[in-house]
Amino acid sequence: MAVFEKAWLNYRVLKELEGCRNDIKVIFSDVKGKCIDNAINELKLAVTDIIGGDEPGICTCVRIVSELSDGIYLKLYNDDDKELNDGFEPGEEGYAVYYDADNRLTVIAADNDRGILYGVFAFIRNLRKGMLPSDIRLTEKPDITFRMLDHWDNMYGDIERGYSGNSFFYDNYRIIIDDRTEFYARMMASIGINAIAINNVNVHQEETLLITDKYLNEVKRINDIFASYGIKLYLSVNYAAPVEMVELEVSDPLDEGVIEWWKKASAHLYDVIPDFGGYLVKADSEGRPGPFTYGRTHADGANMLARTIAQYGGNVIWRCFVYNCRQDWRDRKTDRARAAYDHFIGLDGEFDDNVVLQIKNGPVDFQPREPVSPLFGGLKKTNMFLEVQIAQEYTGQQRHVCYLVPMWKEILDFNTYASDKGTVKEIVSGEAYGNRLCGIAGVTNTGNDINWTGHDLAGANLYGYGRMCFDTALSAEEIAREWITQEFGTDKFINDTVYDIIGNSWLTYEKYTPPLGVGWMVNPSNHYGPNVDGYEYDRWGTYHFADCKGVGVDRTVATGTGYASQYNKPWSDRYEKPETTPDELLLFFHHMDYDYVLDSGKTIIQHIYDTHFEGVEEVERMIDKWKKLEGKINPVIYERTLDRLNEQLESAKEWRDRINTYFYRKSGTEDKKGRTIY
Amino acid sequence: MAVFEKAWLNYRVLKELEGCRNDIKVIFSDVKGKCIDNAINELKLAVTDIIGGDEPGICTCVRIVSELSDGIYLKLYNDDDKELNDGFEPGEEGYAVYYDADNRLTVIAADNDRGILYGVFAFIRNLRKGMLPSDIRLTEKPDITFRMLDHWDNMYGDIERGYSGNSFFYDNYRIIIDDRTEFYARMMASIGINAIAINNVNVHQEETLLITDKYLNEVKRINDIFASYGIKLYLSVNYAAPVEMVELEVSDPLDEGVIEWWKKASAHLYDVIPDFGGYLVKADSEGRPGPFTYGRTHADGANMLARTIAQYGGNVIWRCFVYNCRQDWRDRKTDRARAAYDHFIGLDGEFDDNVVLQIKNGPVDFQPREPVSPLFGGLKKTNMFLEVQIAQEYTGQQRHVCYLVPMWKEILDFNTYASDKGTVKEIVSGEAYGNRLCGIAGVTNTGNDINWTGHDLAGANLYGYGRMCFDTALSAEEIAREWITQEFGTDKFINDTVYDIIGNSWLTYEKYTPPLGVGWMVNPSNHYGPNVDGYEYDRWGTYHFADCKGVGVDRTVATGTGYASQYNKPWSDRYEKPETTPDELLLFFHHMDYDYVLDSGKTIIQHIYDTHFEGVEEVERMIDKWKKLEGKINPVIYERTLDRLNEQLESAKEWRDRINTYFYRKSGTEDKKGRTIY
Repeated sequence: MAVFEKAWLNYRVLKELEGCRNDIKVIFSDVKGKCIDNAINELKLAVTDIIGGDEPGICTCVRIVSELSDGIYLKLYNDDDKELNDGFEPGEEGYAVYYDADNRLTVIAADNDRGILYGVFAFIRNLRKGMLPSDIRLTEKPDITFRMLDHWDNMYGDIERGYSGNSFFYDNYRIIIDDRTEFYARMMASIGINAIAINNVNVHQEETLLITDKYLNEVKRINDIFASYGIKLYLSVNYAAPVEMVELEVSDPLDEGVIEWWKKASAHLYDVIPDFGGYLVKADSEGRPGPFTYGRTHADGANMLARTIAQYGGNVIWRCFVYNCRQDWRDRKTDRARAAYDHFIGLDGEFDDNVVLQIKNGPVDFQPREPVSPLFGGLKKTNMFLEVQIAQEYTGQQRHVCYLVPMWKEILDFNTYASDKGTVKEIVSGEAYGNRLCGIAGVTNTGNDINWTGHDLAGANLYGYGRMCFDTALSAEEIAREWITQEFGTDKFINDTVYDIIGNSWLTYEKYTPPLGVGWMVNPSNHYGPNVDGYEYDRWGTYHFADCKGVGVDRTVATGTGYASQYNKPWSDRYEKPETTPDELLLFFHHMDYDYVLDSGKTIIQHIYDTHFEGVEEVERMIDKWKKLEGKINPVIYERTLDRLNEQLESAKEWRDRINTYFYRKSGTEDKKGRTIY
Repeated sequence: MAVFEKAWLNYRVLKELEGCRNDIKVIFSDVKGKCIDNAINELKLAVTDIIGGDEPGICTCVRIVSELSDGIYLKLYNDDDKELNDGFEPGEEGYAVYYDADNRLTVIAADNDRGILYGVFAFIRNLRKGMLPSDIRLTEKPDITFRMLDHWDNMYGDIERGYSGNSFFYDNYRIIIDDRTEFYARMMASIGINAIAINNVNVHQEETLLITDKYLNEVKRINDIFASYGIKLYLSVNYAAPVEMVELEVSDPLDEGVIEWWKKASAHLYDVIPDFGGYLVKADSEGRPGPFTYGRTHADGANMLARTIAQYGGNVIWRCFVYNCRQDWRDRKTDRARAAYDHFIGLDGEFDDNVVLQIKNGPVDFQPREPVSPLFGGLKKTNMFLEVQIAQEYTGQQRHVCYLVPMWKEILDFNTYASDKGTVKEIVSGEAYGNRLCGIAGVTNTGNDINWTGHDLAGANLYGYGRMCFDTALSAEEIAREWITQEFGTDKFINDTVYDIIGNSWLTYEKYTPPLGVGWMVNPSNHYGPNVDGYEYDRWGTYHFADCKGVGVDRTVATGTGYASQYNKPWSDRYEKPETTPDELLLFFHHMDYDYVLDSGKTIIQHIYDTHFEGVEEVERMIDKWKKLEGKINPVIYERTLDRLNEQLESAKEWRDRINTYFYRKSGTEDKKGRTIY
């Protein structure tokens, strides 16, 4: 038995529901499918553990509907439901929940078992807000078709960029399947996740064999657990698998032998796991193999794989994180930010229908602040996933509070001006171009820590990610407050206090870390903690070029790398000039003198000093607020979180002092407020 | 059978000795002792493999000396020898070598077998210069009593700061004893090493057990091989051994139980290995345990150990490398350079006779340039070892050529003004205060690489270290040229060429690395390659404080940390002022503006630019010179060294560009010569 807590599924009996404690006597269902047992079980738990009633009876062979009463009815959506719900159509994964007062019956109706499962979770979510069943009325369906999680778990048991312990899928090259696997699937279903890749995109030696008989039966066991929660399982594959397995000498996508190899491998895989999701691929990046080795394009590479699984309904997810990671820091012309666009824009329209390009939100790499990747506005005839990182690699590594939903919302709302449906949301929801295969992928922040996410408050990011994907209309605040309710209960003081802490925590984090969008300034390799020149003379293409006069990267067309031109108008014009570039991205696009005056009226150098002092003060206030929760919440979570908040404060001070000292020494400019700079 | 080359013992028949090929028919000996067999074997090899003669007969039972002829005679030094050699007295380890023309007999005379062994190696060294036996006349004895090597080998097989492969003493927690062990002892004896500590001063879990029966029998086997070459074996011990072995709860040096524990351990150790050398201890430093834990002094700690081995003739070598490695970079008052002096000066006179303090050459840590540690001039009533690092941790890691003997010679010649015998050489030779226990310890640069030292030219440092300790009057050039002859033969062109490359290589290295004595600027942890701010905001007390106006550490009494006052006059006065501080140490002692004019007439900033360009040019010239040796030396060594030289060039360019760019960006000052700075 794995040891773990239940995060936001920690059901507790609610006083608010006392009045309906004896109302739900039977759960009726006439829907069939893999998820139905789990949906019914979840409802049973809800009745006993949230409402506090006796365990309800189960009736899964409903014959005469008109006789149903005093319970919950899971049903296939029909014309009557449509009429009752203003013409709402649930589609693949939507649901309607409504109350039949005559028969004291909560109806959860959907087109299939997955819709029912989501409906059940939605019903429970509302129960846990303290709503009586008779008050719950929902007609919802997901805005984003693919709501995916990418695990960067390695079979050794470690997690690349994992900050919540080790993997719960693997230990020492063995696959783990236990009660935690089941609970994880349940948790993910509860927030609407419907696809999960269970191994790192950097596919090492042993992981290359996940698609072979050595591991396939165990992968199928995980797949089946996932399937019973409506989740498709994906595997990251090694593009050079036939070579690494010493079966072929090349992995050229146009080579007949290679094509046959993959056809055979895929056919066998789908023979064992007929409902398998597909392949996730990181190719020709950071040392990974790929089609470039053979002079082929990424379209050649992706399509070859895709054609071996198309007939089974499988998809290929192909990452666009391709750049030269052996850059010379002396070379100021090459610009890593340009790389994804430069590599992929010419291939628009060349990818098969079951291929999707997975594009990181920004052009570089999950920094606390980046412009939106210009590929979203560039590609028109290609399936696209937005990739975000729930794991806080550059945003405090789950030792700092950094609620990321506001950042992701900004990205989704960014208008690329590619068409009149030009927001990223419209593009990755399929609305813009009508794609079937599009969505959002998040690099998960989970691990085998008892609380799943290391920092308890990082649960808001995982929960929020799923909820945001399902319902993009929810605001970041609505999502945060919803999570707080699910996690900590219905108390308003707790809700307000926790929200005060997490609500703006991303902006707080930004204040004490790299200024004005310039990024990096972290310790190399582990990416934690400040190191202003940490990457400045390295090979990764991540520079700030600070000198005694100014700082920032000139990415203009006029005098810089020309990156700004990868955007559609008006962005390309706005980013070309400092005056029209938003302050928060100024140093991403321009090398500016320290005495340049920002929109805020402050000089850059004074902005740096001020924000860094403010950032630390805001963390101090977070701690004060958290301390008000002592005795009001689970003491284990209280102490655990207080420890991390204290570490965050120390780290924030280190950031403040290093950044301020660095720029003070470099610029020679005094702080106008005369505060301590070392 | 281990695979290794013979370094400077790669005996080859010399044409120059053709004339005496048949002269040595018998090796006579009337000296007894552990080293005699090895001395005779070495001579046999010399006759066959250097002179090219037939294997000589051996006569070890000399009865009538007047009948000896046509050979070599190893004998106990007596009054006749003294008269023949101008009253020379060989002492413990000296020897006389002279030729008895009447009987065509080379005489090697000494007070004991160890002196004979050194005499044999000295005779051979001269043979290999092409000298005929009849021309060899020597009366030599070592200047330094303890000529020690410290291995930082761990039992896992790795070597801390090892750049020549793994350990040849250990592999995967097993002790290795093979033909390489034997050859190593022979090599070390050939350069006069007489003490070796075979495990890292950072004594980890398993190494703590080296003094126990788990490993003692194998340690004894190494000890006996060493003894047959006149070398004393030492072990680094864990000060907390009784605690780590879970036998006691404290390791307080004044605790009766602790004293008993060590008495018992030492008694048993000397019971198994009666001629064991003693203990080497790193205590209260960089996380190692020590007497501070119990509020005791280092004298308490060292004396306690020393008293457990005094009766067996054992010594305790106690390192002075004690400092706070958790410093706050914001704190500009604390100065790591002060630490060794501050910790130990108050204990002068408190250490037992069989305790010696091992003092690193400089106050910080083996930087390419440091002032000499003020402890040498401070302690008056304490035994002292000078510790140098043959391993090139901060001097190119055996990927760069950096001949270190010139640096060590400067250190030995440094006048501390502690007395009229105030040079470091006079202090560590015992001349100044008449100590029995004093000497030099070198952290070795060896490993299981086929050529022992990784870089072939690093052999000059190992060889040179031993020869310099034995004969401090030899110049760095004499030592270098002697090594070249032993390694590459008697060819003058080769000698000149190799000497041209290595002779000034330390100064070349200094040119392209941290300027004017400021030190560090390396990548953290591995210490290889440039990273100007690598340690600037870290906890190690190693800063340069560069800002837009200047750079350097103020260690004056007037305005800085006061470190300069740790020296005797006139150094304390000279170091107090920039004008009287030698240029090469200027930034070690002072924070100076970039436009300060050096003795050389250049500003600091222009000096930085110039030396960094020059350094790279000098490496380019090294490569040109080396290429002239193609076809003239062993092609394996030629290619191996060329590879490293090419790597050195790339690395030197990286140093040049990073340092120049860093200071250009920081100072905003143009290079007067308009060269490329990025």
